[in-house]
Amino acid sequence: MEIRTFAELLNRVREMRPLVHHITNTVTINDCANITLHTGGAPVMAHAPEEVEEMVGLASSLVLNIGMLTSSQVAAMLLAGKQANRRGIPVVLDPVGAGATHFRTESVRRILEEVQVTIVKGNAAEIATLAGERAEVRGVDAGEVAADPIQAAQTLARQLSTVVVVTGKTDIITDGTRTACVDNGHHMMGCITGTGCMGASVLGCFAPVADDPWIAAVAAVTAYTIAGEIGGEIGGESADGPGSFKWRFFDAMAGLNAEKIAEKAKIRQVAPSPNL
Amino acid sequence: MEIRTFAELLNRVREMRPLVHHITNTVTINDCANITLHTGGAPVMAHAPEEVEEMVGLASSLVLNIGMLTSSQVAAMLLAGKQANRRGIPVVLDPVGAGATHFRTESVRRILEEVQVTIVKGNAAEIATLAGERAEVRGVDAGEVAADPIQAAQTLARQLSTVVVVTGKTDIITDGTRTACVDNGHHMMGCITGTGCMGASVLGCFAPVADDPWIAAVAAVTAYTIAGEIGGEIGGESADGPGSFKWRFFDAMAGLNAEKIAEKAKIRQVAPSPNL
Amino acid sequence: MEIRTFAELLNRVREMRPLVHHITNTVTINDCANITLHTGGAPVMAHAPEEVEEMVGLASSLVLNIGMLTSSQVAAMLLAGKQANRRGIPVVLDPVGAGATHFRTESVRRILEEVQVTIVKGNAAEIATLAGERAEVRGVDAGEVAADPIQAAQTLARQLSTVVVVTGKTDIITDGTRTACVDNGHHMMGCITGTGCMGASVLGCFAPVADDPWIAAVAAVTAYTIAGEIGGEIGGESADGPGSFKWRFFDAMAGLNAEKIAEKAKIRQVAPSPNL
Repeated sequence: MEIRTFAELLNRVREMRPLVHHITNTVTINDCANITLHTGGAPVMAHAPEEVEEMVGLASSLVLNIGMLTSSQVAAMLLAGKQANRRGIPVVLDPVGAGATHFRTESVRRILEEVQVTIVKGNAAEIATLAGERAEVRGVDAGEVAADPIQAAQTLARQLSTVVVVTGKTDIITDGTRTACVDNGHHMMGCITGTGCMGASVLGCFAPVADDPWIAAVAAVTAYTIAGEIGGEIGGESADGPGSFKWRFFDAMAGLNAEKIAEKAKIRQVAPSPNL
Repeated sequence: MEIRTFAELLNRVREMRPLVHHITNTVTINDCANITLHTGGAPVMAHAPEEVEEMVGLASSLVLNIGMLTSSQVAAMLLAGKQANRRGIPVVLDPVGAGATHFRTESVRRILEEVQVTIVKGNAAEIATLAGERAEVRGVDAGEVAADPIQAAQTLARQLSTVVVVTGKTDIITDGTRTACVDNGHHMMGCITGTGCMGASVLGCFAPVADDPWIAAVAAVTAYTIAGEIGGEIGGESADGPGSFKWRFFDAMAGLNAEKIAEKAKIRQVAPSPNL
Repeated sequence: MEIRTFAELLNRVREMRPLVHHITNTVTINDCANITLHTGGAPVMAHAPEEVEEMVGLASSLVLNIGMLTSSQVAAMLLAGKQANRRGIPVVLDPVGAGATHFRTESVRRILEEVQVTIVKGNAAEIATLAGERAEVRGVDAGEVAADPIQAAQTLARQLSTVVVVTGKTDIITDGTRTACVDNGHHMMGCITGTGCMGASVLGCFAPVADDPWIAAVAAVTAYTIAGEIGGEIGGESADGPGSFKWRFFDAMAGLNAEKIAEKAKIRQVAPSPNL
């Protein structure tokens, strides 16, 4: 797999300008709308049961994020997710805080049972929880995780026939067979809220532009974490803190192009876990 | 009409510090509160049916935005809008995504039937939809619009006895008789989320300070788009991207004054469409 | 009381990294999550009745903010608050707009009756309202307040056996017996939305790290307002407006340390009001 294959998908996002329908939390909803624009997509946020199916009918992809889940939101997600499946558009699920409360864990299980999700993206604890392993989830942050995250991701990907993305210092992207590790990113990405949620929006931008969701996910994660790197070190000068990092990160995402991605990408393909 | 008449309304906003009650979407609610402050108003956001009428009782104007509509929000908007009518304070309506789903289109129709709205502000597709013309609305963005936007705006303004603002590269402000075009603005305003919603908040700041809502709307649109220009080109140096543009835009709105508006305003009054 | 006692609590926040559970408004929820991170805590936002008690079970403190109150949110706050009391973790209440509408005033009264709140933080009008005095609340801003704010705060603190924080040019922190005034801060803090709400989040970060909630509250207010000062005057150069102030303020909070606090703190302890 050539780096350029991944890098050039960003051009396709900007040509297609996919409409990315989000049902998401109110903490980071503004950030998700902005990063979608800066990546090259068009965001739409709609969560009323009266309109989610019709809005999915216009959309190129659907992003579901359970960061501020309510029972009525679960109902809207199920309606929208099933409609996305009927239309054959990709569905990205961000299981924020799965494992922290029964309500979140059960709701995610139900969504995964009733909706064929294309890409599941979470931190190591969330993914381990969904893979059926013990993990400490502290609020919405990953705590101690016993399991090997690559193996947990591969297990979950096979269970669900989906692509799984595990975020962290190294990001892992697997469909259960092919597994890539991306070593891009910047420590400042962990110092602001919304980095995880925005990553799901970027996956929602890339998913409609490639037939192979694993390629789309590797490309999205690489582009996004390189924007983080550039945002953290604009002009060789570090952002002074998380406040200045955030807008530099947005500038970097909007100014990103295939050349910069090809130059900076640190993608390693890893062999399948022998235990699988 | 002298440019200074429009420019000096900003001073009146800052003297009056109008309380602008918003019932709005969660995507851009923080931006709307901030731009209200930077313009010179005081924002208040309240949507519970238990309190909206009482809060309208304290307010100088009411801004309704359907960007993340729910049925309970429609109910709150009707309660608040009717109370605003009883009190005689101006009502600004932002029909975000009208035409995209039946739920949005019907809800806007119902609000317009039951509430006398002072200013309706939308993009060309939303306004064409409300004027009864065919328009493609893609999520919450304007798609292809068959109709002449000036004529659609004038038609709608006459139908509703309201002021209509159509946003775009050129903004159109009409009461069906008088029509102004404002050529201010900066392309970066289209690169961040919330520019439309914040425009409605600025209309909400200006509407209470002039007896003539068309003058208030022309003044608001001019001030707001000039702030966008200044934000995009601070000190002759362009913003590097949408992240830096956003805070420079906020700085520019807060630092705006009547002199800068009078110097930069590009307002053209146009003759009524012959077809009306 | 040594200044260093207050200053060094920030180190304890960063060592403990308290999980601060918020049930809060959507206007400033993103800002609250970010300031919690920058102070050294971990934010979690959860409001579904199905999960609030379980989430409180993981949390180090609970922050309740009524800025966009609904009746279902009141129910969630009562569930969460009672669970916090059972677990003995501190509860911070921000009675945004109490006095503006009956719904807000009654809801706050009910929360204060059913939940033992550790720290109540509001502006002068909100605190006067809760202390049973007449005050003009204009939307969510303080209007004219007849009463002496120190006396109102001391009265309320004794009534509720709680710590009361009154924000303003000078911040007042009292437990009814000990009263401190903090003269730090920057006028730009009043030019952006969310400064009050974020202050409650910072109180939520400090409350779990000291046995004495009055000390925690004095330390939190001092740290927060010094970050405002630094954000307003970074490198001797003023922020150009509220947009640039906001990210500089975030940078300043993240870069704050005990030395800067000890150097800049302006804490005065005042004698109890003779009228109490």
